Amino acid sequence: MSRNGTAKVIFQPSGRRGEVEKGINIIEASRRIGVDIETLCGEKKVCGKCKVRIEEGSFEKFGIVSSRDHVGPWQEEEGNFITPDQKEAGYRLACAAEIMDDLLVFVPEESRAGKQVVSKAARDIEINRNPAVKIYTVTIIPPSFKDPLGDFERMMQALEKEYGLKGLNIDLFTLRDFPNIVRKGEWTVTAAVWMDKEIIKVWPGEVEDYYGIAIDVGTTTVAAYFCNMRTMEVIDTVSMMNPQCKYGEDVMARITYHMQNPGGLERMSNDLIEGLNELIKQACDGTHPAKKKKKDETGKVVKGEDGQPVMVEAPEEGKVYPRLEPSDIVDLTLGGNTAMHHILLKLDPRYVGLAPFPPVIHRSLDIRARDLGININKSSNVFVMPNEAGFVGADNVCVLVTERPHTSDELQLIIDIGTNGELVLGNRDKLISSSCATGPALEGAQLAFGMRAAPGAIERIKIDPKTHDVDYKVIGREAWLKYSKPEDMKTKGICGSGILDVLAELYRSGVVTKSGRFSKTQKSNRFRNNPDNPRQKEFVIAWANETSIGKDVVITQKDVRQIQLAKGALYTGCKLMMRRMGIDKVDTIKIAGAFGTHVAKDKALIMGLFPDCDLENVMSVGNAAGDGARIVLLDRNMRDEANWIARNVEYIELTVEKDFEQQFMESMQIPHMKDEFPHLKGYVPEEILHQK
Amino acid sequence: MSRNGTAKVIFQPSGRRGEVEKGINIIEASRRIGVDIETLCGEKKVCGKCKVRIEEGSFEKFGIVSSRDHVGPWQEEEGNFITPDQKEAGYRLACAAEIMDDLLVFVPEESRAGKQVVSKAARDIEINRNPAVKIYTVTIIPPSFKDPLGDFERMMQALEKEYGLKGLNIDLFTLRDFPNIVRKGEWTVTAAVWMDKEIIKVWPGEVEDYYGIAIDVGTTTVAAYFCNMRTMEVIDTVSMMNPQCKYGEDVMARITYHMQNPGGLERMSNDLIEGLNELIKQACDGTHPAKKKKKDETGKVVKGEDGQPVMVEAPEEGKVYPRLEPSDIVDLTLGGNTAMHHILLKLDPRYVGLAPFPPVIHRSLDIRARDLGININKSSNVFVMPNEAGFVGADNVCVLVTERPHTSDELQLIIDIGTNGELVLGNRDKLISSSCATGPALEGAQLAFGMRAAPGAIERIKIDPKTHDVDYKVIGREAWLKYSKPEDMKTKGICGSGILDVLAELYRSGVVTKSGRFSKTQKSNRFRNNPDNPRQKEFVIAWANETSIGKDVVITQKDVRQIQLAKGALYTGCKLMMRRMGIDKVDTIKIAGAFGTHVAKDKALIMGLFPDCDLENVMSVGNAAGDGARIVLLDRNMRDEANWIARNVEYIELTVEKDFEQQFMESMQIPHMKDEFPHLKGYVPEEILHQK
Repeated sequence: MSRNGTAKVIFQPSGRRGEVEKGINIIEASRRIGVDIETLCGEKKVCGKCKVRIEEGSFEKFGIVSSRDHVGPWQEEEGNFITPDQKEAGYRLACAAEIMDDLLVFVPEESRAGKQVVSKAARDIEINRNPAVKIYTVTIIPPSFKDPLGDFERMMQALEKEYGLKGLNIDLFTLRDFPNIVRKGEWTVTAAVWMDKEIIKVWPGEVEDYYGIAIDVGTTTVAAYFCNMRTMEVIDTVSMMNPQCKYGEDVMARITYHMQNPGGLERMSNDLIEGLNELIKQACDGTHPAKKKKKDETGKVVKGEDGQPVMVEAPEEGKVYPRLEPSDIVDLTLGGNTAMHHILLKLDPRYVGLAPFPPVIHRSLDIRARDLGININKSSNVFVMPNEAGFVGADNVCVLVTERPHTSDELQLIIDIGTNGELVLGNRDKLISSSCATGPALEGAQLAFGMRAAPGAIERIKIDPKTHDVDYKVIGREAWLKYSKPEDMKTKGICGSGILDVLAELYRSGVVTKSGRFSKTQKSNRFRNNPDNPRQKEFVIAWANETSIGKDVVITQKDVRQIQLAKGALYTGCKLMMRRMGIDKVDTIKIAGAFGTHVAKDKALIMGLFPDCDLENVMSVGNAAGDGARIVLLDRNMRDEANWIARNVEYIELTVEKDFEQQFMESMQIPHMKDEFPHLKGYVPEEILHQK
Repeated sequence: MSRNGTAKVIFQPSGRRGEVEKGINIIEASRRIGVDIETLCGEKKVCGKCKVRIEEGSFEKFGIVSSRDHVGPWQEEEGNFITPDQKEAGYRLACAAEIMDDLLVFVPEESRAGKQVVSKAARDIEINRNPAVKIYTVTIIPPSFKDPLGDFERMMQALEKEYGLKGLNIDLFTLRDFPNIVRKGEWTVTAAVWMDKEIIKVWPGEVEDYYGIAIDVGTTTVAAYFCNMRTMEVIDTVSMMNPQCKYGEDVMARITYHMQNPGGLERMSNDLIEGLNELIKQACDGTHPAKKKKKDETGKVVKGEDGQPVMVEAPEEGKVYPRLEPSDIVDLTLGGNTAMHHILLKLDPRYVGLAPFPPVIHRSLDIRARDLGININKSSNVFVMPNEAGFVGADNVCVLVTERPHTSDELQLIIDIGTNGELVLGNRDKLISSSCATGPALEGAQLAFGMRAAPGAIERIKIDPKTHDVDYKVIGREAWLKYSKPEDMKTKGICGSGILDVLAELYRSGVVTKSGRFSKTQKSNRFRNNPDNPRQKEFVIAWANETSIGKDVVITQKDVRQIQLAKGALYTGCKLMMRRMGIDKVDTIKIAGAFGTHVAKDKALIMGLFPDCDLENVMSVGNAAGDGARIVLLDRNMRDEANWIARNVEYIELTVEKDFEQQFMESMQIPHMKDEFPHLKGYVPEEILHQK
């Protein structure tokens, strides 16, 4: 029992624990203790995303007794999301259940925030198979008194005779297992050889399939591609929120955290490594047969002695992989921006944040997984992609390895919009790169009702120029508002892909002027002062009765400014680079990243997000960064090419270009009037287009 | 306070602790708790080697209160070894002080057993300086907006421009420190480069001297040579007992321990690594100014607030080195027999002990010090010498790297007598090697009164053929018994170098016959049945009144057998190898190891320890194994030569040679009659020589 007034709360599986005052709900406790539970509706008991399970029993290890009686009474709304079966198993909504005494709370996978982020699914890309790790099966002659040569040298004789492999090293950790493995395999073994140099794993007997993983570490999202190294097939794609998000949203915030907190670098690195290990485990677990509750003949769930349902294996049809473990992964490649790269490797990132922003290192690194604390095959090396510059990192090299503008005659502009914007311009003659501080607005973050691309997020919008009436579509529902009952929309916010739509429509309909201000002449009842902050203007996109969060979804003056800043930064970058190259038009625009996949290209062009280009030559190239990490996993020649790219793309620091500020100011206008946007004409009324 | 009847005892600096019954002495407690305290006299309070300090105070960390009142009363004999100053500081003899209650006992360096073993001092050898680790100082141009290249690449540009070094890697752990070091050095740094491949350390500014260590891991003794890599000077030689000795005296015992104890391999390896780290620390501490007690003007010891004497630095004259730490050691080489090699690296040694005795690996290994847990510069590699065969290991390669018989025309027989005998025979045309199970008898172990070469050990002996009276000399005293008062001898036992003397004299004087039996016809009062075991015959070498242990020092029939077995094994090995080579005489005999340094060569030859050879061509080559480790530390070309040797010396398994047993039986005779020993004639009377 805890002291009067406070209760001990332990969250599983993270194991985080703390002491909180009685009476607060589990969501609030999770926030204080630092556990992320999904809370889409803002604790309104209407999204059902925060399901947790109250564990019962005496947990001596933690010194607490946890019971369902230690939470407040069941609330009616919980029944909307929790089935009677689940209720019986101890499930509650974390926003509804109040803490009355000590608790052990299990947070299921689906309730962990930052879990179900945009899936960075793998694209079909052409890769020339030539992995850094190759495998060779050999049969070895056992030793005798006449020939008592050592085990390793015997294997080397066989590898040379059968495959012409000479002078290989072997890592100590692999050598340790070797004498017993060779005997277990009855003198037939399969050796994994890294870069024709070193033996990094030996299996007993013959092995055909082997596995690798390519990881793209974004500032916000981490995605991993789990590959069969023989077939080059992507077995699974798994992703998660970068666990460093809690230390700051963007790159500069993380660098600052390091500089202001002793041990901060280690903490951020370790959190990420731990996350990578979980991701790797998750990828491997995906190959294990799923579990389901055992049922008896009558269909009733069978319970074990502990009162919990008995779980049995339920292999998923059509997905027959061997049951893999992290130690089966023999190669791993990593891409990420320079700050993520440095923090992951515990390289001091402070100089990346200080002019002239030099990285600690450009070239790629081969680092033993064990030296990084990454749990894969213990002798394996992690290939870390090279960096272009302090603000154009290994992630951009990944994009270029995929798109290969250096082999093209076309003048390409490649835009990778993440939390930072990275730009590359050029062709086989010359390539320049730059970065621009777009901020996270284009991804939907930092806006009053910005949200991730999840069900209930507004992704398309139309505003009637006369009535200022709004029609929109949300993710997860085919019908637009116009064809729906308001209460069926269950709107929650606006996601990245809807944001440019909103801005374009607000402008086209005259709600905001080209300078980004709300027009004072409009009379729409949707235009108003924020009830809580009367000096803040806002425009209602969705009325409370259309939402699942019980309040109006609005776009504020501040939101519009954020979007303008983002688009201005991006556009300025593009234009200044073009000026450097002495060109005024590009042949192709490639947009990498999730934003590119979802944005309406025409609206982006119209709003002046990037320079004018024929619409058919504006293309999304998906998660090219992740693709690049996958390419170097499967083709070692591309590792050399990556290093070549990192050293031969010329980085330009835009903020020190003359008239940068002037350009930036102009670029914030909607649309950017210094340029010709032929596409704009049919969309925006003439009187709007020519208003001052 | 402890429970009635028992007391908690904690030994420092090891931190080992346990609970023992009250009333036992500290030596007995140390034995039970597993702490090694020197006890040369067998707890007779006469050697003074077991000095310990009783710490006083309340040690909350350990939950005990320790006090000098918690040991039994001071005993008069302690005064012979403990000065009044020491007494005041809490010193006691561990064999005299009885435990009455909880104690924290500090065991000073000099009282730790296995500490003061035979010093394997460094020989002057010629080495061609070409170390694997070289250092380079460069001045780097700082980054600017025009040239924002990364820190590492800037250093590489400077290294290439100034030294032509290209395409170097850098270890992650060195890279982590690098950005701050380069700024601390104001863009001048010194880089340590391993094998022209990888940067393993960077110092700020200019550095001239740098350091390495060569270690010879023997089954019984570990010796380390601490070298200045620039001057090639040996700064210090430190040694210790192999901490694995507690798991078994010889190689087979250790292998058996591994096979019979789960986790045994890890335990033995970890103990050795821990020992190596202590040895390395000890070597570094040797460069620190010594500490002495601070005294005031009147010469009185100054005490601090804690009641302990205040220590001040007292630099030793003529020994001016920078204060070095283990992290200053940038290279380390290791030699040892195959079993020590395998156990150290945690390679399964079981197959080395099973016919046909293949090692796991022959070739040398470069292993990150951190992967082995060896505390030197974290990016450094340990060079582990290659193995010749299961029973002729990396230590023998070290000997051959030093003696280089493969470059000689002379037919050399190289004998390395440790706990196992290793033999190499041949010249530039052909080299063969073999091992023989000499056992530890020749080192003085396993004999009734065998002991290490320490003060009080009999090292020379003469027996009067008529009276059978014995005269002898002990280590630490110039005068022979004949010229001394018996009580001045303070004899304790017989050390390795005295053992062959004893056997030769016993034979020459007719006490034992050539078959190794005590002659039944002798009437000496020194010849008798063992009082405790009447079936065991023995011969008294020193009477109790000549000893410091209070009992007769004898040599038993079993002792003689042990010596015969050892010499027989060695001689058989030599003869069978010569037969294989088709020769009946060698040009040179080289004896490596401590035994070679101390043995009377003439007696060894006379007793048939090895084949006949001109006495001037029988030479001791000292600790050639240690020298070899030092050679490869300072000359990387010799690493290649070591690998060549390991693969080109042909190993012969003698035990499967035909008539091995017959040869062995004959070789056990004293002297071996099948051979001509011209040296024997003047020494052994004719009637003894021709007795049947």
